[in-house]
Amino acid sequence: MSPTSMRPFRDVISLDAARAILDSTGSPIDRIERIPLEHANGRVLAREVIAGGDVPPFTRAGMDGYAVRAGDTRGATRETPRALKQIGILFTGQVSTAVVGDGECLEISTGAPMPEGADAVVMVEETASEAGIVRVFAEVQPQHNVGRRGADIQTGQVVLSAGETINSSRVGALAAIGASEVDVYERPRVAILSTGNEIVEPGRPLEPGQIYDINRFTLSAVVSDHGGIPVLYPPAQDSLDALISTLDQCLANDVVVFSGGSSVGERDLIRDAIAARGQLLFHGIAVKPGKPTGLGLVEGKPVFAMPGYPTSCLSNAHVLLVPMLRRLARLAPLVRKILTLPITQRVLSATGRHQFYTVRIENGAAVPAFKASGDITSMSRADGYIEIPADVAAVEAGTPVDVTLF
Amino acid sequence: MSPTSMRPFRDVISLDAARAILDSTGSPIDRIERIPLEHANGRVLAREVIAGGDVPPFTRAGMDGYAVRAGDTRGATRETPRALKQIGILFTGQVSTAVVGDGECLEISTGAPMPEGADAVVMVEETASEAGIVRVFAEVQPQHNVGRRGADIQTGQVVLSAGETINSSRVGALAAIGASEVDVYERPRVAILSTGNEIVEPGRPLEPGQIYDINRFTLSAVVSDHGGIPVLYPPAQDSLDALISTLDQCLANDVVVFSGGSSVGERDLIRDAIAARGQLLFHGIAVKPGKPTGLGLVEGKPVFAMPGYPTSCLSNAHVLLVPMLRRLARLAPLVRKILTLPITQRVLSATGRHQFYTVRIENGAAVPAFKASGDITSMSRADGYIEIPADVAAVEAGTPVDVTLF
Repeated sequence: MSPTSMRPFRDVISLDAARAILDSTGSPIDRIERIPLEHANGRVLAREVIAGGDVPPFTRAGMDGYAVRAGDTRGATRETPRALKQIGILFTGQVSTAVVGDGECLEISTGAPMPEGADAVVMVEETASEAGIVRVFAEVQPQHNVGRRGADIQTGQVVLSAGETINSSRVGALAAIGASEVDVYERPRVAILSTGNEIVEPGRPLEPGQIYDINRFTLSAVVSDHGGIPVLYPPAQDSLDALISTLDQCLANDVVVFSGGSSVGERDLIRDAIAARGQLLFHGIAVKPGKPTGLGLVEGKPVFAMPGYPTSCLSNAHVLLVPMLRRLARLAPLVRKILTLPITQRVLSATGRHQFYTVRIENGAAVPAFKASGDITSMSRADGYIEIPADVAAVEAGTPVDVTLF
Repeated sequence: MSPTSMRPFRDVISLDAARAILDSTGSPIDRIERIPLEHANGRVLAREVIAGGDVPPFTRAGMDGYAVRAGDTRGATRETPRALKQIGILFTGQVSTAVVGDGECLEISTGAPMPEGADAVVMVEETASEAGIVRVFAEVQPQHNVGRRGADIQTGQVVLSAGETINSSRVGALAAIGASEVDVYERPRVAILSTGNEIVEPGRPLEPGQIYDINRFTLSAVVSDHGGIPVLYPPAQDSLDALISTLDQCLANDVVVFSGGSSVGERDLIRDAIAARGQLLFHGIAVKPGKPTGLGLVEGKPVFAMPGYPTSCLSNAHVLLVPMLRRLARLAPLVRKILTLPITQRVLSATGRHQFYTVRIENGAAVPAFKASGDITSMSRADGYIEIPADVAAVEAGTPVDVTLF
């Protein structure tokens, strides 16, 4: 490599500008797959779901007790009970052939279909039974303790709309109408590739000058956490042709995330590979950590060139990749919890760069946790981060800061 | 069934009392499994992890630029640059055999091991290079732009402690020290079993009096969301012997969750099966929805008897099962986000019962969403819930309420 190929980052853009570009790069996934309801939790509905029947499908008892004609209970109190003749007993899952007539009642379980003739249920607590005669201690109105057919969901009703994320209650609504399968959007597939001649898989011994691959694991975790499928590729060889060929393979996915290229030569190769196949949208952001981050668009697919430094890479995965990934996955934007706490020490910030500064929470205060961009413990020992705008040079000890929790 | 077997819930306990019992029932999982690092995200570390080496494993360049002897840059400015002789170039992953002497420098990539003799790096932006001579425009101090061996993690240091939940940054810390596998606590296995003669699997046609199984799906989703493994069992036959035999099978797991038994007979059977094999801790809680909920302890394992009504079952899964499950899974207690909003309509509450009342958020206000305990749309159409204490009978329209978001 000749010294002239060392291209410094003089053309950095602001974080806001980078975010604006990210927001208009890449499209939400349109591919749809049909999956069993058992696997639907967390997925995004691709089609409106219409009820093919009523829920409940029949009018049923809402309480354990006695199905009665409400008129027969008029004036009933504990002192002046009404006596009804019990004509049978009906368990849930059974259908009564008996008809409840005047002065009659039928013992009924919660959820059993109301028998003909009856229009209310007296709960068991309000009765006493002896020798086939049931004394009723309270008056009930028609429909009391009765769940009407279709009260929950009516035939033809929209149960869930396209774009809604299925959760524990919505999966219940789908089960309620008998859906055993559901059409959901496919999850974005994210190609992940660590570059760098110094990178070695964990579990193998290190040679001099080598370090373990960290970004593959942190990026995979972030992608899985936010609705994507991580697809891991082996490192590319350190030549433009090899990198272009790898990029072409990675384009079988929806998003490509290179990390590394921390050496000037490698970094230029990724930039050049993107430029050879598509468009480089930016390269260098006025943010710390994570300045040497690039974004390209190739065949309509976002291609990230993340820094090799673990904290830089992971920080920008949260700041830049997660919002895009959730948009592509059609998930709601992430809302992280924020606590306002005093900071225990003065923090200096590189002016001109928007800084994400990690902190631990100890005794109700924010304790600086950031060490260096290359230090993964800057994040693994932190509970969250504060943001220091580009035009602020220092945050004084004792200042209340907004801590965004991880 | 004789009428005398209809046992009403007259012995309900308060929600606080139920919670106190739940908090002391069941033990955190002690079983440990070794898993690949790729699958460690979200799992709980079972053993302290000690670094077997330094991270970084060698002192390295923190910037692209030139490795120098700091003393050689003294007084350098753009007007009075210092000229150094470039003796070579070092990429990441390489090890230099050259030694940097007085008046010399070595072009170096971020992450490459510092060559002997050099003690600082001048960033490329502060230099100009021509014909093997590098002009340095800024003075650097010793260790400037240098990442010292062990600066991130030192040999013998505790990288992560037992009980910590592995997330995207902690998986990075494990990768950094070369761990390819990790010892984690097993996830609690939760047996899930819907009872009720009326229950049919989604996808099959309904006969008269039948409804679809909802709780199996909602409970599975809740268990998966909170660190457990749902283990599904087929419905038990409606006899005490069959139920005891099913319970015995389910005890191969860590927690057992029956739902249903909504008919008085079934409910008593579950209660009797628990009593036959262990201890019934409570049966009936002063809460709405979800009053007919029981808890037993059999062979040291919690056995839930959840109501059959979908909203009652799911609400109590969140209120009662989730805190216990997270404790058994050794996950931090769930902290849900709370918004304070005015409620749009008056809400009546059953006094004597602590009520969880579902709401939708519309135009910055809380809109009542609760229909009935049997209605799954009470939850699937809600964004969160408000709590109405047992001694409050009504919440007036316009009152600010705390909405706990799902």
